[in-house]
Amino acid sequence: LDVKLEIICVGNELLTGKILNTNAQWLAKRATSLGAMVKRITVVGDDVDEIASAVCEALQRKSNFIIITGGLGPTFDDKTLEGVAKALNRSLVLNEEALQMVKAKYAEAGELELTSPRTKMAMLPEGATPLPNPRGVAPGVILKLGDVSVVALPGVPAEMEAVFEASVAELIRNASEGAAFYEASIYVEDLMESNLAPIIEAVMHDNPYVYIKSHPKGNIKNPRIEINISTVAKSSLTAKNRIGKVIIQLSELIREKGGKVKV
Amino acid sequence: LDVKLEIICVGNELLTGKILNTNAQWLAKRATSLGAMVKRITVVGDDVDEIASAVCEALQRKSNFIIITGGLGPTFDDKTLEGVAKALNRSLVLNEEALQMVKAKYAEAGELELTSPRTKMAMLPEGATPLPNPRGVAPGVILKLGDVSVVALPGVPAEMEAVFEASVAELIRNASEGAAFYEASIYVEDLMESNLAPIIEAVMHDNPYVYIKSHPKGNIKNPRIEINISTVAKSSLTAKNRIGKVIIQLSELIREKGGKVKV
Repeated sequence: LDVKLEIICVGNELLTGKILNTNAQWLAKRATSLGAMVKRITVVGDDVDEIASAVCEALQRKSNFIIITGGLGPTFDDKTLEGVAKALNRSLVLNEEALQMVKAKYAEAGELELTSPRTKMAMLPEGATPLPNPRGVAPGVILKLGDVSVVALPGVPAEMEAVFEASVAELIRNASEGAAFYEASIYVEDLMESNLAPIIEAVMHDNPYVYIKSHPKGNIKNPRIEINISTVAKSSLTAKNRIGKVIIQLSELIREKGGKVKV
Repeated sequence: LDVKLEIICVGNELLTGKILNTNAQWLAKRATSLGAMVKRITVVGDDVDEIASAVCEALQRKSNFIIITGGLGPTFDDKTLEGVAKALNRSLVLNEEALQMVKAKYAEAGELELTSPRTKMAMLPEGATPLPNPRGVAPGVILKLGDVSVVALPGVPAEMEAVFEASVAELIRNASEGAAFYEASIYVEDLMESNLAPIIEAVMHDNPYVYIKSHPKGNIKNPRIEINISTVAKSSLTAKNRIGKVIIQLSELIREKGGKVKV
């Protein structure tokens, strides 16, 4: 039932810090909410070998979904599909369905000529299927390899989100069979993180399906700590029961040690 | 002269999308500005094996710097140093210098007892050196392995930045021998990205030390594209000359094709 998912983001602009990687957060949050466990996020540059090696490594770790964003456009530095093809030792071939998608988008804008940068967006790894892009030109791509789905999405956030919602969300939801991620936070004051540590450990030990993590927000003299409690469950009732029990246990132990708890 | 750097971010909260990874962007930008080439960013969860495998893989790729953030605190889920120790097949040992740093921080807050969660922050991989944390308790850590420096920084952004500036920036600057990253952007209107593609390719071919990347900002009917031009150079004059030449070449070719250029 554990659906493992990895995210690979492609783009030099992420490695130089020009761009904040909001795509990774958006995808991580959506995939988690659909019941998948995001195991790793990898960012590589616009380089065929780097992309291919990131894809190979994710395949070796036996993820169920490998979602790649960025690098599907018409310019020379859009190398994602070449990297995926290399990782899988397949060729890039002109995909007729993808070509029709690209053609239709340019025709809407009054451009009838299929230049080579335009055709490039329809060159898919052998065996891949294009996914419609409701917000842009470059189609997404999906390639199924046994239990693993390799999905390539555009890097422009609005296009990435649109392709994901239209074609990918459903696949993840089905694979996770209705499991979903739930979380809640409480806030602790007047207790240092180092004094909270044994409390969290004891409560986690008691509640094996729940993950508890402390996030310090204040400083050593004015400690203020967010405690985030999360679980993956098949129903919201199970999740609420688990999280509620943990909040009660934590709160009691924190108050005993002199801390204040706020919800 | 090429100084390669990888960033590893540790934290389940990044994999669930709870937190936007601003640390990765901050580090990528600073390292790039100090002349390093950021080759990869990897995000893993609070899991010793995941951390160890990310560190091993980065070592195999022969980066000069591996910078890890997060997971240095007092709680059970702060596992970064355990992961680093495992990757290097070393033990965690109590580091006297680190213990003094931790002790002094708690003493300032009137806490004299060294509980085990507090001592934990002074358990470093054998051979490592602690780096002072001007903004918090957990020391940073550096471990030199021949040409490679493995650096662990706290995950709280203010602490991470403070440790980096106090102890790490200088090391990267020295390694890159004064090379630095420069960039500029121009904006193109009324020309589609697919028509811009051959222009960029031709100009890049002419200017091997310069990287040119297009970032679509509009849509197919109202194309507006940022073209980012970047280079790594030893002097700002060399960088400006390279980038200036490229802007002139690009602008001429774009205007010939009917596009408008804005700076």
